[in-house]
Amino acid sequence: MSSHEMVFRPIGYVRSPYQEQSGTPIQPVFGDDTEATVEIAPEYADGLCDLVGFERIWLLMWFDRARPAKMIVTPRGDTVERGVFATRAPSRPNSIGLSCVRLLGISGATLRIAGVDALDNTPVLDIKPYIPRIDAYRKSRAGWLDTDEVRARRGMRADERFDQPRDTET
Amino acid sequence: MSSHEMVFRPIGYVRSPYQEQSGTPIQPVFGDDTEATVEIAPEYADGLCDLVGFERIWLLMWFDRARPAKMIVTPRGDTVERGVFATRAPSRPNSIGLSCVRLLGISGATLRIAGVDALDNTPVLDIKPYIPRIDAYRKSRAGWLDTDEVRARRGMRADERFDQPRDTET
Repeated sequence: MSSHEMVFRPIGYVRSPYQEQSGTPIQPVFGDDTEATVEIAPEYADGLCDLVGFERIWLLMWFDRARPAKMIVTPRGDTVERGVFATRAPSRPNSIGLSCVRLLGISGATLRIAGVDALDNTPVLDIKPYIPRIDAYRKSRAGWLDTDEVRARRGMRADERFDQPRDTET
Repeated sequence: MSSHEMVFRPIGYVRSPYQEQSGTPIQPVFGDDTEATVEIAPEYADGLCDLVGFERIWLLMWFDRARPAKMIVTPRGDTVERGVFATRAPSRPNSIGLSCVRLLGISGATLRIAGVDALDNTPVLDIKPYIPRIDAYRKSRAGWLDTDEVRARRGMRADERFDQPRDTET
């Protein structure tokens, strides 16, 4: 198997209140409504056209301060080891983070977002619109996260998988 | 704004029936049930533990044959120009593709998937479990894709945004 390198450059940076890993939410849905901004470099600003109107966006980030990759990890807040690709842990080969965040507004090349889970100055690789038709599968089975044991350990109600606390469904 | 480089290496490759761009579905949901495989490099195989049981996975890929990035693009099947970050077009800064595909099975370090939209030999950057609680926002507003004009042009029914043709909800 060849192993050619892929070289990427940040399109911008997250400016968030989180300065260190402890205290940072694991994923937006666990966090509060903390607001943050994403500053996009001027040369990419035109690419933000038409993004207003999307309620949510995908942030693809580089976890630049993640520990070296391990194939078996213990997810934060858990006690059982899992294969890293069955988790969203940051310490993974190619430490790319994927978060669905709410887009509150855009001013120039600065995006205001909510539900951020990234450390301050995290490099941003890409921004994509959240499109329910291709992204939302509400009842997709979620493997080990679906077991009663894991739910109990995480203090989740048995049916929490079907709740959408951050969704805007009414 | 600094512009440090990020260097990634493929964890594996997509083996798909699609040899060239024409004929490749834009996104899995538009495609048929075409099956494909993802071959993960041996050194990462242990990271696949516990992935069985997830109905869907996120595939993060490098669109290695995408045209050079443009800030304003005309989405395929459309006629109106949009900012690239408001689209899922492959020709973007850091051409990373994000697709929610169905996981049919894992044999050794080979994943069998369905609903693939990638060209044969596309490098894979990362695999993540699809977790409805943090990934599924079924009624999230989808900006320009929500307008009647775009729906008509794409031959979509007015309420198609709320359909989940590939979901397993019953």
